[in-house]
Amino acid sequence: MNSSPIQHLAERLARGELSLDNFLRELANPKTADLGDVQLDLDRRRRCGYPEAVFGEGKSVATLERLIQRMVAEQIEVFATRIAPDIAAALIEKFPSARYNVVARTLRLPLQQSKILNQTPSVAVVTAGTTDLPVAEEARETLKWMGFEPRLVQDVGVAGPHRLPEKLHLLDGCAAVIVVAGMEGALPSVVGGYVACPVIAVPTSVGYGASCGGLAALLSMLNSCAANVTVVNVDAGFKAGYVAGLIAQGAARSA
Amino acid sequence: MNSSPIQHLAERLARGELSLDNFLRELANPKTADLGDVQLDLDRRRRCGYPEAVFGEGKSVATLERLIQRMVAEQIEVFATRIAPDIAAALIEKFPSARYNVVARTLRLPLQQSKILNQTPSVAVVTAGTTDLPVAEEARETLKWMGFEPRLVQDVGVAGPHRLPEKLHLLDGCAAVIVVAGMEGALPSVVGGYVACPVIAVPTSVGYGASCGGLAALLSMLNSCAANVTVVNVDAGFKAGYVAGLIAQGAARSA
Amino acid sequence: MNSSPIQHLAERLARGELSLDNFLRELANPKTADLGDVQLDLDRRRRCGYPEAVFGEGKSVATLERLIQRMVAEQIEVFATRIAPDIAAALIEKFPSARYNVVARTLRLPLQQSKILNQTPSVAVVTAGTTDLPVAEEARETLKWMGFEPRLVQDVGVAGPHRLPEKLHLLDGCAAVIVVAGMEGALPSVVGGYVACPVIAVPTSVGYGASCGGLAALLSMLNSCAANVTVVNVDAGFKAGYVAGLIAQGAARSA
Amino acid sequence: MNSSPIQHLAERLARGELSLDNFLRELANPKTADLGDVQLDLDRRRRCGYPEAVFGEGKSVATLERLIQRMVAEQIEVFATRIAPDIAAALIEKFPSARYNVVARTLRLPLQQSKILNQTPSVAVVTAGTTDLPVAEEARETLKWMGFEPRLVQDVGVAGPHRLPEKLHLLDGCAAVIVVAGMEGALPSVVGGYVACPVIAVPTSVGYGASCGGLAALLSMLNSCAANVTVVNVDAGFKAGYVAGLIAQGAARSA
Amino acid sequence: MNSSPIQHLAERLARGELSLDNFLRELANPKTADLGDVQLDLDRRRRCGYPEAVFGEGKSVATLERLIQRMVAEQIEVFATRIAPDIAAALIEKFPSARYNVVARTLRLPLQQSKILNQTPSVAVVTAGTTDLPVAEEARETLKWMGFEPRLVQDVGVAGPHRLPEKLHLLDGCAAVIVVAGMEGALPSVVGGYVACPVIAVPTSVGYGASCGGLAALLSMLNSCAANVTVVNVDAGFKAGYVAGLIAQGAARSA
Amino acid sequence: MNSSPIQHLAERLARGELSLDNFLRELANPKTADLGDVQLDLDRRRRCGYPEAVFGEGKSVATLERLIQRMVAEQIEVFATRIAPDIAAALIEKFPSARYNVVARTLRLPLQQSKILNQTPSVAVVTAGTTDLPVAEEARETLKWMGFEPRLVQDVGVAGPHRLPEKLHLLDGCAAVIVVAGMEGALPSVVGGYVACPVIAVPTSVGYGASCGGLAALLSMLNSCAANVTVVNVDAGFKAGYVAGLIAQGAARSA
Amino acid sequence: MNSSPIQHLAERLARGELSLDNFLRELANPKTADLGDVQLDLDRRRRCGYPEAVFGEGKSVATLERLIQRMVAEQIEVFATRIAPDIAAALIEKFPSARYNVVARTLRLPLQQSKILNQTPSVAVVTAGTTDLPVAEEARETLKWMGFEPRLVQDVGVAGPHRLPEKLHLLDGCAAVIVVAGMEGALPSVVGGYVACPVIAVPTSVGYGASCGGLAALLSMLNSCAANVTVVNVDAGFKAGYVAGLIAQGAARSA
Amino acid sequence: MNSSPIQHLAERLARGELSLDNFLRELANPKTADLGDVQLDLDRRRRCGYPEAVFGEGKSVATLERLIQRMVAEQIEVFATRIAPDIAAALIEKFPSARYNVVARTLRLPLQQSKILNQTPSVAVVTAGTTDLPVAEEARETLKWMGFEPRLVQDVGVAGPHRLPEKLHLLDGCAAVIVVAGMEGALPSVVGGYVACPVIAVPTSVGYGASCGGLAALLSMLNSCAANVTVVNVDAGFKAGYVAGLIAQGAARSA
Repeated sequence: MNSSPIQHLAERLARGELSLDNFLRELANPKTADLGDVQLDLDRRRRCGYPEAVFGEGKSVATLERLIQRMVAEQIEVFATRIAPDIAAALIEKFPSARYNVVARTLRLPLQQSKILNQTPSVAVVTAGTTDLPVAEEARETLKWMGFEPRLVQDVGVAGPHRLPEKLHLLDGCAAVIVVAGMEGALPSVVGGYVACPVIAVPTSVGYGASCGGLAALLSMLNSCAANVTVVNVDAGFKAGYVAGLIAQGAARSA
Repeated sequence: MNSSPIQHLAERLARGELSLDNFLRELANPKTADLGDVQLDLDRRRRCGYPEAVFGEGKSVATLERLIQRMVAEQIEVFATRIAPDIAAALIEKFPSARYNVVARTLRLPLQQSKILNQTPSVAVVTAGTTDLPVAEEARETLKWMGFEPRLVQDVGVAGPHRLPEKLHLLDGCAAVIVVAGMEGALPSVVGGYVACPVIAVPTSVGYGASCGGLAALLSMLNSCAANVTVVNVDAGFKAGYVAGLIAQGAARSA
Repeated sequence: MNSSPIQHLAERLARGELSLDNFLRELANPKTADLGDVQLDLDRRRRCGYPEAVFGEGKSVATLERLIQRMVAEQIEVFATRIAPDIAAALIEKFPSARYNVVARTLRLPLQQSKILNQTPSVAVVTAGTTDLPVAEEARETLKWMGFEPRLVQDVGVAGPHRLPEKLHLLDGCAAVIVVAGMEGALPSVVGGYVACPVIAVPTSVGYGASCGGLAALLSMLNSCAANVTVVNVDAGFKAGYVAGLIAQGAARSA
Repeated sequence: MNSSPIQHLAERLARGELSLDNFLRELANPKTADLGDVQLDLDRRRRCGYPEAVFGEGKSVATLERLIQRMVAEQIEVFATRIAPDIAAALIEKFPSARYNVVARTLRLPLQQSKILNQTPSVAVVTAGTTDLPVAEEARETLKWMGFEPRLVQDVGVAGPHRLPEKLHLLDGCAAVIVVAGMEGALPSVVGGYVACPVIAVPTSVGYGASCGGLAALLSMLNSCAANVTVVNVDAGFKAGYVAGLIAQGAARSA
Repeated sequence: MNSSPIQHLAERLARGELSLDNFLRELANPKTADLGDVQLDLDRRRRCGYPEAVFGEGKSVATLERLIQRMVAEQIEVFATRIAPDIAAALIEKFPSARYNVVARTLRLPLQQSKILNQTPSVAVVTAGTTDLPVAEEARETLKWMGFEPRLVQDVGVAGPHRLPEKLHLLDGCAAVIVVAGMEGALPSVVGGYVACPVIAVPTSVGYGASCGGLAALLSMLNSCAANVTVVNVDAGFKAGYVAGLIAQGAARSA
Repeated sequence: MNSSPIQHLAERLARGELSLDNFLRELANPKTADLGDVQLDLDRRRRCGYPEAVFGEGKSVATLERLIQRMVAEQIEVFATRIAPDIAAALIEKFPSARYNVVARTLRLPLQQSKILNQTPSVAVVTAGTTDLPVAEEARETLKWMGFEPRLVQDVGVAGPHRLPEKLHLLDGCAAVIVVAGMEGALPSVVGGYVACPVIAVPTSVGYGASCGGLAALLSMLNSCAANVTVVNVDAGFKAGYVAGLIAQGAARSA
Repeated sequence: MNSSPIQHLAERLARGELSLDNFLRELANPKTADLGDVQLDLDRRRRCGYPEAVFGEGKSVATLERLIQRMVAEQIEVFATRIAPDIAAALIEKFPSARYNVVARTLRLPLQQSKILNQTPSVAVVTAGTTDLPVAEEARETLKWMGFEPRLVQDVGVAGPHRLPEKLHLLDGCAAVIVVAGMEGALPSVVGGYVACPVIAVPTSVGYGASCGGLAALLSMLNSCAANVTVVNVDAGFKAGYVAGLIAQGAARSA
Repeated sequence: MNSSPIQHLAERLARGELSLDNFLRELANPKTADLGDVQLDLDRRRRCGYPEAVFGEGKSVATLERLIQRMVAEQIEVFATRIAPDIAAALIEKFPSARYNVVARTLRLPLQQSKILNQTPSVAVVTAGTTDLPVAEEARETLKWMGFEPRLVQDVGVAGPHRLPEKLHLLDGCAAVIVVAGMEGALPSVVGGYVACPVIAVPTSVGYGASCGGLAALLSMLNSCAANVTVVNVDAGFKAGYVAGLIAQGAARSA
């Protein structure tokens, strides 16, 4: 627990501005909503900059509905990943303003108030092949939820070596580049050799045989000889988008 | 190959400012120094923001000497990792201004001209245990080479749960936090839950039995439930430092 | 074979209290019921403190029915795990007093005579996320069958670092704590740093990509830096519950 | 952070018994000794029942000396594992009362005041073969440090099936049994079928070929069909001893 | 190619008993029936003692029908493994004398002439649990096809340690014992310590979590400390039965 | 990017035969057709000798239709692998001249103009067992697309050792031999010992248990003691066919 | 425990031929010599046909000396494997009649009385390459200890396909064939296709890269398409020899 | 055994040109030199185009000396790989004409008669980094032994993306390209996209952490999206050179 809020509370307690009872309640209830099988973190926006996103896999419609209702009530912009189409349909009936991206399998409930988009600097999402698109879309939806408009560069894998150089200008001025690739996972290393910003590599489970469900690409990326390449889990589009968004925000904030 | 330098050259060729011969020489020799078994990338500083660092493992003293000599001649600040003590001793004899960090096993040749350090925002390097220090030091030396003064927070692994909260104020305002951990590799997830910036997780080969030379920690970090955690290879202190430096620089540049 | 029952039998044989024939029958038939494809261990309650539980996976309704019938006849409280809903429905038709927990997928036939519950000390079952619940429920049903009333602490994974401290008082005075977690499996280490009793870590197959069906969490838990953490197989809710029950019973017995 | 100490401090603050400054100092310094590269947990005895043990691997004599000196000053009974003979020799020179177990590779500094040993109930340490002894000894030294006198049952692996039954009486009345085995790791399952207490299985790296440095035994133990078997890491004698000690202590405390 | 048949042919060629043409035809056609996508080995009975068995997995009804027809014509007793129920039904329509074992998923076409069974010495098939039965049945059907009447000992896994000793007399006088076990795969080691003949261990894919589809049991069996244990592939009931049959036949032949 | 076309363009630019604008357009557009989610490589035939083949897995009918349409327009002979039967049916409706091989799951659209087949030297495709046929057929279709008529040698796995020598004459004069095998993957080594040309080994996912989806065969082939064996991915019939075709073409070209 | 000796003892007890005390002593002391860290199985010769062999790895000279002394006293022919040369030298000083095989690293102490060798039927040991010899020698020494004179067929791996057929006559009439191979481990499958007896495959750790210390050969052998191939652990020459000896003995006994 | 030599012999036998005795001797002795622990294949040059190369690992000086002596006597040009420097020194003393390449660790004994080098077409060996050189040198020495003069292109890994295009002209007209790379193993895919000939990828054990001794690079190369990439074992420079030589020879022969 970060010491500064406690210090602040303690000062108020010492000054008599806060009763002991309220002081302890504050300590005992640091903004968590107990929804039974889910503990919604109401404090995360303050602590981590963004509210909690919902990992949809394995959650029932009922659980998701309860979660979303409470988030809406708390003025949190809902963003849920790994939502199957039938679950999405059921949720949209309850929350008609929700938008479902069927490729990314994400659901978003934009807040009413208009959001000013962060457009400078931006983030690019690059795919090695056509079948990497769903993971790339999950990353892009995450970035949109964070207020960015990521560029998309598709199908520039290393077997067609001129395809990437043709698109390199699209990566100019990016704060971070996300590279999504299955099979041998070589693209992040190549992109890493061209750009001056961090490259976030996302292995995908595209492939067969010794691709081992994406582990071959994962290992390849972890062993990248390019110094600016970091890696997230196989198919982890959300995490790649989130980290890229944080990097871009850090750069944008000080701009 | 980025199209803009070619466009620039072509304009000069078209305007007659450049002979066809020189135009082709420029195309054919884009700033690589051919040292036989090493192709030194003289163009990387322009392209990627920083010059090449030297991966010392498996390189002989002779090869390293040739490399360093050329880099010094090109006004590149030399930084070499994975340099064994006896190799370092031999190199320091040739290059007395070199500084060797025996824990990190890195060698640096600072340039004469004073460098203005980037101190805002900073980067913190956090270790789970005492034996993670060599990897953390490699990350810190990398950041110093890039012009940062990283903070070090040591031995705050999860088994002593109060140790991290006591040090959390040291992470305030960081552009990125590097977390170095072996064994179960749980620390990055916990740090990730407290901070608003990207966390770069570095698994180390510390441990025994089913730690599998750091792979257990690596898998754990890849599966982190914290959204802001990315991962580099086992013991990859240099890469973690480099990516953190790029993030901090992005934030600093616009400041 | 434990020597004491044999010694007892031999003494009775030497004293003429037992015919050679009966002596040999006792040796040859140490309380096993031969049901063809199943050898029901009728002696386990004496030897191990609790009767055999039924591992339901791969057993047909017919086999299960035969087993349960015999166990009921032997006054054994039936407890079966990994029972699919349709199998459960078929069995409940035959044994109307059976209770099926659809989340845990366990079936229990309580004995008529009221059982005095062991409430001091207790056991707590802690989950990292919502999707870990089925495994946690299997552990809890096991503990109930053993006569305990385990507490449930849900969704306190490490990414929301304040959620666990808020619930720590629920772990006070526990004889053992079961921690159920998928993904990076970091929660047991953190809980282990707060409590003075053994922590039984249960990895779950929740996750994707490099979670490798729970092996990542398993490895993480095996490498825990907390000294009081032991591990059971992936998704092994029954085993975790059983061991925790044995520990609590040891503590309770002497109370 | 457990809320009760904070509550206690806050009450004192509210009653004016504690200045705000001291209140914050207490919050900021919850009994950690900052030794540079080590953060010694001075609070663990209160929180977890036993003080910190020292994991010796990778720590220099200098670091160990600093640690031990401080622990002695804090009246903590020092126990260090994975201490190589030459390191032990250097430490014994400084701390002549230290006792080194060369098979277990552990170092202990008993406190002056006599300790009353917990002898009821006890713990047994069982080995499958002669070469499992070092790990068994590490477990036994850990138990001695915790105040127990563990029994040792050696070389009763499953290939000689009568050896275990002959020794079963030595396991009577144990609160926990530690079973140390390499190769196929079958012994814990067999022991688990005979006893009514938890069995803590420790795979060892004894073996060759497909033993994979103990992973074969580890997997075997995790898949044990005996319900009372839990597992710790390969060669983790300390952890097995510690958990067994906690279980025995729980049973002893209430006795 | 074994030199003796060639020598025999060459002698006949040299003596003029065989034309060069026929000599070459014999060399070129050593008893293989070319059925297009299958090369039926007509010579195996002579070379290896038993005719070819049919591995049914992935073969269509049409291919199987063609194969069986030819084998029947060649007076080969057909034995096919891994035949799904619907495939079996289709084949039985064509070959009404075929017998399908639905648990073993094997199909056999006994030859008209009565076969004298080899009953001395015999082979026993032992299972650890109820769910290992299909693999055990595949082994037994294989042995029946080879002319043996194997004994079946079911559900004597190590968690109920008295179950095996009660049945040990059934293993007396066996030429080989097959032990089928999933989970931790400990049973073969225990049986190996009791008997004087070879033990053929068959791991099964029964289990969950870290059983890794039977690989945990496989590794355990390979690392068996019992000297008389050999291993076949996971679920390889046919191979275990075949090798056991060869051993028994060797012993029987000389009887 | 190969320097010679740039040099050619630059010479024309220098000679004034090409405007700067057109020069840059040529550089910026090296024959890629941007179809949104696919970047069709129009230059590959010039660069690599053959046009792009289509990897069908995970591509929708719409995407495939768009791709094929463009390829036809560019006079590229379409060849697509991993096309499911329902997708093939939908495509054949649009492109009636397409030919679908249901065993290989490949689709080909022969160009109108008759192609002169390369018949000397040829390539042979050898299978170990019946179930390896689909992968062999994918290799053969690939070779047909490249203008070869590969021979097929089926079901000559090592367990029937005389089957291969009988067919060896079919491998005479081949420029390359493809060997397709599952299970233990031994056949390529044996073939490698008989022939003087490169052997391309293709492991298949045929098998069970410790075949690990073809990885056992893959490892076996990689460790082949025959010097002339190279390996492609599990089930990678296309790649084996393509490489064999390139080798044969190299030999044919100079003939 | 086999029931018959107990039955025999009980009958003597019932007939008064045995006092209760002696009866219990017999039960309690079934021929184990307790040597502290070793429990020597004195009953194994009766139970399993052969006395215990000594696994030398990790045992000190002192332990080995104690063991051997006792075995000699019990008239057991000593056979020890994995004995390093320096250990062997120390033991030979104490036991001058011991014979050390430096290639096999085995030590044997022949009993004075002459042993009649079993020469019919025999066992053959086949190696794929020169470097497989140490493992083959361990198997041969084991067979000699059991009273056989195994034939040795060296360096007939599959890459030289005519080498094996030239030696096939040496396998005629064998009761079992041991095949020792590293790298791709293909030889056992090929041998299996030629002979009518069981083949015991021994993978060796010979090889590099993806041979994974012999695991590639192990997997290959487990997946053998030859029905008569069983497998033992990597480098397990002793186990292969022992099982082959048991098979040959079974065949010999009835001869 | 290829049928044509037998046919040829049989025709001579039938025509009386060959006695039965000699006919059988020819069949029985197909050109193998039995050197005890080595079976030298004297027929391989005829069958496979090149004589046997010697795999030096694990062979003693004595064995190597015997082998080389015989090969020299048979007019075979000796080529041995994996020869340690001290072994090489001992051999050179015996065979002064031998040439040792200390980087490649290969030994070659050129035949007296001058060999006409095959220079068209050639083979190129490309390395990703400086530390890949030993494997590349082994490949080059192999090619020289086969009569080629391979070009060497060093240190053009993907992190410096302009280094490869600068050297592409060196790959023009090659019959095959060998690409040697460790770490992420991405270079073969990139080279594969530029050239029209087969690419033989050689992973090296260069790297650390999750490179897993070269397995990460191996998996990456197996999953290459470039159609013309085949793979050999980790560090298998000899095999890569040999296959490339065969391809080049095939192309050269018909030229």
